[in-house]
Amino acid sequence: MPPDSAAAAPLSARPLRRITVLSGGVGGARFLQGLLHGLANGSVPGGTPETEVTVIANTADDWWIHGLKVCPDLDTVMYTLGDGIDHDRGWGRRDETWSAKTELEAYGVEPTWFGLGDRDIATHLVRTQMLEAGYPLSAVTEALCRRWQPGVRLLPMSDDRVETHIAVADPESPSGRRVVHFQEYWVRMHAAVPAEAVLVVGQEEATPAPGVLEAIAEADLVLLPPSNPVVSVGTILGVPGVRDAVRATAAPVVGLSPIVGGDHVRGMAAQVLASIGVEVSASAVGAHFGARSAGGVLDGWLVDERDADQVAPLERAGLRARAVPLMMTDLDATAAMAAAAVALAGSVTA
Amino acid sequence: MPPDSAAAAPLSARPLRRITVLSGGVGGARFLQGLLHGLANGSVPGGTPETEVTVIANTADDWWIHGLKVCPDLDTVMYTLGDGIDHDRGWGRRDETWSAKTELEAYGVEPTWFGLGDRDIATHLVRTQMLEAGYPLSAVTEALCRRWQPGVRLLPMSDDRVETHIAVADPESPSGRRVVHFQEYWVRMHAAVPAEAVLVVGQEEATPAPGVLEAIAEADLVLLPPSNPVVSVGTILGVPGVRDAVRATAAPVVGLSPIVGGDHVRGMAAQVLASIGVEVSASAVGAHFGARSAGGVLDGWLVDERDADQVAPLERAGLRARAVPLMMTDLDATAAMAAAAVALAGSVTA
Repeated sequence: MPPDSAAAAPLSARPLRRITVLSGGVGGARFLQGLLHGLANGSVPGGTPETEVTVIANTADDWWIHGLKVCPDLDTVMYTLGDGIDHDRGWGRRDETWSAKTELEAYGVEPTWFGLGDRDIATHLVRTQMLEAGYPLSAVTEALCRRWQPGVRLLPMSDDRVETHIAVADPESPSGRRVVHFQEYWVRMHAAVPAEAVLVVGQEEATPAPGVLEAIAEADLVLLPPSNPVVSVGTILGVPGVRDAVRATAAPVVGLSPIVGGDHVRGMAAQVLASIGVEVSASAVGAHFGARSAGGVLDGWLVDERDADQVAPLERAGLRARAVPLMMTDLDATAAMAAAAVALAGSVTA
Repeated sequence: MPPDSAAAAPLSARPLRRITVLSGGVGGARFLQGLLHGLANGSVPGGTPETEVTVIANTADDWWIHGLKVCPDLDTVMYTLGDGIDHDRGWGRRDETWSAKTELEAYGVEPTWFGLGDRDIATHLVRTQMLEAGYPLSAVTEALCRRWQPGVRLLPMSDDRVETHIAVADPESPSGRRVVHFQEYWVRMHAAVPAEAVLVVGQEEATPAPGVLEAIAEADLVLLPPSNPVVSVGTILGVPGVRDAVRATAAPVVGLSPIVGGDHVRGMAAQVLASIGVEVSASAVGAHFGARSAGGVLDGWLVDERDADQVAPLERAGLRARAVPLMMTDLDATAAMAAAAVALAGSVTA
């Protein structure tokens, strides 16, 4: 794995039959769109339209609301790749209506700050009913994907309940802090106050969903898209067994920085990185994931071209690093990012 | 009770402080609208705007669909009296949208023949969540009514699960019949085939909801609106204890015929009356309910003016009967029906 063992053969000499991606919501879904686009038009080296892409999606953002099980990251990936997403918002359904939300507000039902669209509710009704009938989330996700045909195998990271909670300062509380569900922090509070701690409830007792460890072990390439390193990729890696599987796979593992020019491109990585003592920079996040040769999970790390000065320190820390454009402005730009990730993987040696 | 004991004082000499109505869905809700209209404008004799109306609603049409508890008769009464009803359909919400229905169909989720509107779904979400939190249906109904302010005290007939099923002929079945849920018979099959039998599952084990027996015992008048005598009023009376309470109340009990000119005005009374061996006529339905003096539940029975020839036989069977217009064409016409029912009650002697 050490990039300086130049005598060894490149790991990615094998064709890309299987790519496994550890994904959060909006950022991950857009990256996957670009990856599939690049595989389809041949711009991703070594890939083919038949290359199987497995997505292991974060489920620690999931919650129950109005009696419905909502899985934002699974649905964002499913809707995005199944051409049902609202492109402007980046989440939820296109041509959505909001009648039920209006009515729930008229009933005075809390929380009113989390709105479910009417089309989206149908997804949650199907999911909730299947879960209550005893199907695990992985089976439910497979059933939902039969309609959406996302072009990837979509797996929840776990069938168990894992929920991210965020501790924020609260001078009115005796302890000085208050713990809120991830969705409350993100949707109601707009992540406008710093996260003092990230608490992932249920994570230690969770097991990976069926197929997750195999998808990592049997991949020809493992990718970390520019998703949130703490509350998306971090929670996936935190499911017992997943980090070890990533460390052990024979495939190269390459990530793309969600931090560009000292801030996140979207989402709230900046707010939560501080809580785990990580600087808001592309190199600090790369170092946080760490080189597999030094106990981490990465072989390669892509940073944006405006962070090119961070390549050398990353390489000194044992990572293959390269600076390329990392703004997902359109499908071709995003496919080029995927191609760069594959190319970087090709330079990783066994 | 016998109408010929002319020496006794009229039962309804007491003022109408409390009226209790045993109601089904659309027909019952429209009658209640007229009753409230007549109480408000003084056209109902003995009533005042302060007269308390308690509605005991049929819940044997209720079912679970897409994981949601749907109570058609409770909701029809609540929406109608709370000014949320779609007047043209007579059921469901005004200004309804159908996005979730479209999506559930796209998922291929059965049954597709029972459509839930998006606004309506919000009601079912609130109800389902409260039921799953342990609240009985009566408490849930009270909570929903805090929004709708229907102007009546709305009680489900029972907090227990009672479900009407209909046996229909099925030559392909070994037994020659098939049993379907009431909603399937009504909504999918449009009651287009005769009901061979009406099976009310769970009825014998059910108990009346809190307040039901008291509302009957303490009423100054009990009314049976022109609801279905089998699957609406019949199922309410079938909850153990309710029929006895109606027979025992000191209040006069007056009903209005849902059969006019040998057919039902709306709904499907004709299809289900045959299954219990009752002729489709105003007098046969009156006789089916029966005079309290002869073991039944009625003191008085209103028939439509075109069924005036049936008054004499009804009176011979021990009922006070009168022929008046029974078409609920508008609020005033319906209030006049309520006034006629009160007037008939006034002629009932203790």
